[in-house]
Amino acid sequence: MSFVKGLKCRECGKDYPKEALHVCSFCFGPLEVDYKYEEIKKVISREKIESRGKTMWRYKELLPLDGEPTVGAQVGYTPLVKADNLAKKLGVEELYVKNDSVNFPTFSFKDRVVSAALSKAKELGFKTVACATTGNLGNSVAAQAVQGNLESYIFMPANLEQGKVIGTSIYGTNVIGIDGNYDGVNRMCSEIADKYGWAFANINIRPYYAEGSKTYGYEIIEQLGWKAPKHVVVPMAGGSLVIKIGKAVKEMTELGLIDKSNTSLYGAQASGSSPISTAVKKGSDVIAPVIPDTIAHSIAIGNPADGYYSVKAINESGGYAEDVSDDELVEGIKLLASTEGIFTETAGGVTVAVTKKLIDQGRLPRDESIVICITGNGLKTLEAVMDKVEKPCVIDANIESFNAFMEKREVCTA
Amino acid sequence: MSFVKGLKCRECGKDYPKEALHVCSFCFGPLEVDYKYEEIKKVISREKIESRGKTMWRYKELLPLDGEPTVGAQVGYTPLVKADNLAKKLGVEELYVKNDSVNFPTFSFKDRVVSAALSKAKELGFKTVACATTGNLGNSVAAQAVQGNLESYIFMPANLEQGKVIGTSIYGTNVIGIDGNYDGVNRMCSEIADKYGWAFANINIRPYYAEGSKTYGYEIIEQLGWKAPKHVVVPMAGGSLVIKIGKAVKEMTELGLIDKSNTSLYGAQASGSSPISTAVKKGSDVIAPVIPDTIAHSIAIGNPADGYYSVKAINESGGYAEDVSDDELVEGIKLLASTEGIFTETAGGVTVAVTKKLIDQGRLPRDESIVICITGNGLKTLEAVMDKVEKPCVIDANIESFNAFMEKREVCTA
Repeated sequence: MSFVKGLKCRECGKDYPKEALHVCSFCFGPLEVDYKYEEIKKVISREKIESRGKTMWRYKELLPLDGEPTVGAQVGYTPLVKADNLAKKLGVEELYVKNDSVNFPTFSFKDRVVSAALSKAKELGFKTVACATTGNLGNSVAAQAVQGNLESYIFMPANLEQGKVIGTSIYGTNVIGIDGNYDGVNRMCSEIADKYGWAFANINIRPYYAEGSKTYGYEIIEQLGWKAPKHVVVPMAGGSLVIKIGKAVKEMTELGLIDKSNTSLYGAQASGSSPISTAVKKGSDVIAPVIPDTIAHSIAIGNPADGYYSVKAINESGGYAEDVSDDELVEGIKLLASTEGIFTETAGGVTVAVTKKLIDQGRLPRDESIVICITGNGLKTLEAVMDKVEKPCVIDANIESFNAFMEKREVCTA
Repeated sequence: MSFVKGLKCRECGKDYPKEALHVCSFCFGPLEVDYKYEEIKKVISREKIESRGKTMWRYKELLPLDGEPTVGAQVGYTPLVKADNLAKKLGVEELYVKNDSVNFPTFSFKDRVVSAALSKAKELGFKTVACATTGNLGNSVAAQAVQGNLESYIFMPANLEQGKVIGTSIYGTNVIGIDGNYDGVNRMCSEIADKYGWAFANINIRPYYAEGSKTYGYEIIEQLGWKAPKHVVVPMAGGSLVIKIGKAVKEMTELGLIDKSNTSLYGAQASGSSPISTAVKKGSDVIAPVIPDTIAHSIAIGNPADGYYSVKAINESGGYAEDVSDDELVEGIKLLASTEGIFTETAGGVTVAVTKKLIDQGRLPRDESIVICITGNGLKTLEAVMDKVEKPCVIDANIESFNAFMEKREVCTA
């Protein structure tokens, strides 16, 4: 049984049917999935959710399918790690890491949105799925399309990391590199979606796709013991995740699953691609598009689709946004790895480094609980740290060489 | 409460206390953990196991700790995937993939043995842990040492893949590259363990370490609906995993958790490092050490610690062993990715390719259930497939370029 009424324009409120639509034809506002919350309220409970499998689909009443998921039924319910070592290092009392770098099948939070999008694409009768990607989304669409027996086309900027490119093409999908950045790719894909009639995860079926992000928020809440987080730091590319975490808190509150509380949302960007954090810091809600220049490719979106709404969500929550340099993000990656044993990608480095910055600025209080959102895996962006980690000291295979190494630590032959 | 009696020599049966020992001082046989099976039988049940968290520690009565795990408490319970697409491609009726490429924290089955080893090292009072590694073990010891607040030293051949090297050094551990292959590294580490008094996961605390592998077998059994697999294909480096899967079946049978059945064990090696499969194919139980020459670095062990016992386990089970070339293993990686959306490392490619070979030979029957053991992640061995996957076609960022691509598929500018 489905609790989806249809789609509704976020701006003018006009209703649309449950189809592959994403823009209001009257006011050009974005369409969102509209649920029968009153009916959900009657059937949902903590106990019911807890009795289900540990996947994102345990919250299925709040997800946009009419039936059961047919793609990615195993995705989600990643660990919320109590990060005591990192907390100590940053000088705060209580810190958690929501770790989607171990999500599967493809080790990023995109597995959530793709599971929702591709399951919906199948419900809508599509045979071919596609996406415009900065890397992680392409990995996930390619892998999950294989699992769902769908044909797939992945469009990505030609300059992405090897792990992202090979981590897509290995699935035998159609990978198209684009001479240009993500924003150019994205514009072209809107035209392709219209002409070829394919389901583009993040374009024509975006309303369904984006709902998958809410599960990242639901899980944080459930894993905190059915309590909304006090402060959450979220990486921002298109700006959707920060909004959807806010929505997750709101929905669970209104459904009576958690007590009313204030959750402050903090956005993290790389300084080389920071249209959203720049707007927040200026006190403006106007997003000035930029041409990205950062090694954090997975969040290098210069013209963010949900920029305006993410600024609004952050401001209304009493949060803030910041950005960090490429050097700082590399330090962020190393800091998380060396304190918590979690190897994240560039976007995760940004989020850790922004957290540190906000704590140092006094914007994140040291005596209140903080959740850091880690959304991707470091094995996919080796290039970013390759020259920034200590090279192994190479010695000969005998104990005398090792004794010499231990005495001096300067006997490396390479 | 612990069910561990102590250690016992696999050859002469002499008893030893629960300490950091691994070789019998009388007959030089390997020591194994000895359990109070009669007492375990009284307390264990399917229901009890099912009521616990979905981690490897749900089988804690059969693991070698005196207390609760202090390192890696979240490891294990990875998916057993019903691989219908791959089954169709290989022409068999029922096929499963046990997918430890999504294990965490470090995406290989080694997370299991390391969780057991480091938790035991803490019980034994060690402050520093170490290992000799072909890659995955080093990743896991480094990451889990950070989580367990232990100092760590990782010894690896200097020629390993970037993903394996950076995936270790990122944690801020001490990484020592050795000019030589794994066998040389391993010999040296035995001496270092004695002299420095460190806990080497796979040397002086090996009996505890190796027990972690059993959980891979327990999970297959539970996930098949409390039924032993009929045929299992297992990658072999030191030869331990295939033995421990056999032990898992035996233990669960004797404890009355499953019905008696025959499980045939099949070993998979790369032809460039195949001392165990060579012995099996010759009908010999003598392991002739080799100097490894294969891109499957993670299983490139020329003098396998458990070679003799793995040959014995395979033969007694009615199974077999095979090996494949580097080209075949790359095809194995691509086959699994393009049918099941699972991107495995070189060792996984070996296991898939050997499965195909054994089916083609008629040694694996097409009408009986088969489980393929996938133990590691493809993002760590990008080098192996980098030049073997289709490069993305690069086009300009406009729909005309894409239309031309779709018509001809030959407009690539790169």
